[in-house]
Amino acid sequence: MVATQNRQVRLAARPVGLPVRSNWEYTTETVPEPDEGEVVVKVLYLSLDPAMRGWMNEGKSYIPPVGIGEVMRAGGVGRVVASGDSAFAVGDYVVGGFGVQEYARLPGKALTKVDATAAPLPVYLSALGMPGMTAYFALLEVGKPKEGETVVVSGAAGAVGALVGQIAKIKGCRVVGIAGGEDKSRYLVNRLHFDAAIDYKTQEVPQGLRMHCPKGIDVYFDNVGGDILDACLARLALHGRVVVCGAISQYNNTTPVKGPSNYLSLLVNRARMEGFVVFDYAARYSEAVREMARWIAEGKLVSREDIVDDLETFPERLLMLFKGENFGKLVLKVADDG
Amino acid sequence: MVATQNRQVRLAARPVGLPVRSNWEYTTETVPEPDEGEVVVKVLYLSLDPAMRGWMNEGKSYIPPVGIGEVMRAGGVGRVVASGDSAFAVGDYVVGGFGVQEYARLPGKALTKVDATAAPLPVYLSALGMPGMTAYFALLEVGKPKEGETVVVSGAAGAVGALVGQIAKIKGCRVVGIAGGEDKSRYLVNRLHFDAAIDYKTQEVPQGLRMHCPKGIDVYFDNVGGDILDACLARLALHGRVVVCGAISQYNNTTPVKGPSNYLSLLVNRARMEGFVVFDYAARYSEAVREMARWIAEGKLVSREDIVDDLETFPERLLMLFKGENFGKLVLKVADDG
Repeated sequence: MVATQNRQVRLAARPVGLPVRSNWEYTTETVPEPDEGEVVVKVLYLSLDPAMRGWMNEGKSYIPPVGIGEVMRAGGVGRVVASGDSAFAVGDYVVGGFGVQEYARLPGKALTKVDATAAPLPVYLSALGMPGMTAYFALLEVGKPKEGETVVVSGAAGAVGALVGQIAKIKGCRVVGIAGGEDKSRYLVNRLHFDAAIDYKTQEVPQGLRMHCPKGIDVYFDNVGGDILDACLARLALHGRVVVCGAISQYNNTTPVKGPSNYLSLLVNRARMEGFVVFDYAARYSEAVREMARWIAEGKLVSREDIVDDLETFPERLLMLFKGENFGKLVLKVADDG
Repeated sequence: MVATQNRQVRLAARPVGLPVRSNWEYTTETVPEPDEGEVVVKVLYLSLDPAMRGWMNEGKSYIPPVGIGEVMRAGGVGRVVASGDSAFAVGDYVVGGFGVQEYARLPGKALTKVDATAAPLPVYLSALGMPGMTAYFALLEVGKPKEGETVVVSGAAGAVGALVGQIAKIKGCRVVGIAGGEDKSRYLVNRLHFDAAIDYKTQEVPQGLRMHCPKGIDVYFDNVGGDILDACLARLALHGRVVVCGAISQYNNTTPVKGPSNYLSLLVNRARMEGFVVFDYAARYSEAVREMARWIAEGKLVSREDIVDDLETFPERLLMLFKGENFGKLVLKVADDG
């Protein structure tokens, strides 16, 4: 290995509201050597996810919080630079939970090899990564859309939302996306072939839903929570399903989460609201990756990444998610593949 | 027929908040004669239900609102006094949607005969009526409790809640009831054999749930909404289920419904919240009535009615439900069976 220094971003303090610079600290350590069974990876790209905000909070969740002083948790794609596991050779490309740092040492069994010739590396953090797995299983296994049904997705130009809408189109549904900004709305309709898009920044969402979902919403895929969740609940069709995948509008609240006032629409419409965590489907990831890769190859599915750099700017780049500034899957480029 | 006068209670104006006397008007009409296929029933008992408050509101729901000037909708049990339908003889006991009045004229096909020798008549408005059907299908088909799971029910001393808890016990679950008042709590544990009861008027519900549901809540059967719903969401177990059957705490709101702030517990716990309307199971009522009647005969299920009179006091009696003053199924006695 040429490099000897490993820059890292650690959680210094738990944020109140939007994370600020002082919630983070930078450290530099020597790049570690792998022990038996371990692998050292040079991190090339890191996935920036809304869920990161939740991991910064104390308290019970689907995954333990990141501890104060720990390297911030992050998934990524990188290249093996030293290996104590015969299953991995130097030069192999792998995905894993690297953390926000330049080099990561992990057990080989925590890594998955990827084929850098089959797709650009960032796609393994996007359609062929966790956002893809999330969209695929949450929509198909929890939302259970049927051909001809109306599917509404919020955060529709984001990593998960754009894939949800496209998968719903592949399954023969009418698809309406909710996103912020005219450029995103145009992209959803023109490039991803959504049936309609609602720009929540300039349009009234309830009116948009009335116009574009004349028969009500059969599946609402919620990435945002808040007022948009309420508007979609109010427009549910009989036996509608609400997939609770995220609530980005609420993650930086300093006041209690806004509960959905219109939840009694579940009663009126005999409808269901159900939560989803992607890890529950880990045993079936390969099945979804195969199908998603085939759809990409057939031109039916577009994986769009918004690639920004670099490690130093991590705190500011993360905030792009909460300001709706990303367009597609937000990926932090950490290093050139050299 | 001896009587010629039919006293009626009609909806005079839509209430804001708790209904008051001026929301009602009293009328007296001549008792009608049945046309071909019709039956005239002397109303003996009427069912007073929290859902009545919803029927008084304008707007889309699972059933149309009661119109201004119409006889208030109500289910009841009564005796046939005149029949134009060969399927019904004078003296038959029947249940049906009579409305809040002394005599009702309905098509024979809208009535169901009941056996007055098999159970006291008010039981046909309780365990063997809509509350029973609601408890049975909502718990078993939506909540889907499994043996050994923890089931929590609110409004636990009410018409539906008391049956839900008892059915859950029959199915081998650990059952915790939430009700208002020490006498109700004692009744749930001592008479209905609930494993524990929480008196929300004197105890902190979150603490009670922590104590009595050490492994979390597998099924929460919600009759009340509001803070109790939030407390139960916060205590859900992995793959928990919330049955949205009612929200009595919210029915008289003059402000928007309180949405459940803790709904993201659905995500964390991969849990489900689902609405229920009993009418969807109409085709299977007879199956449930058979099983409930058997449980009553075997001493496994207690049907408790809180019988009050009379038609004149309907407006005040209805309010007992919203003040938590009823203890068991609230039934308005309209007439002696003479």
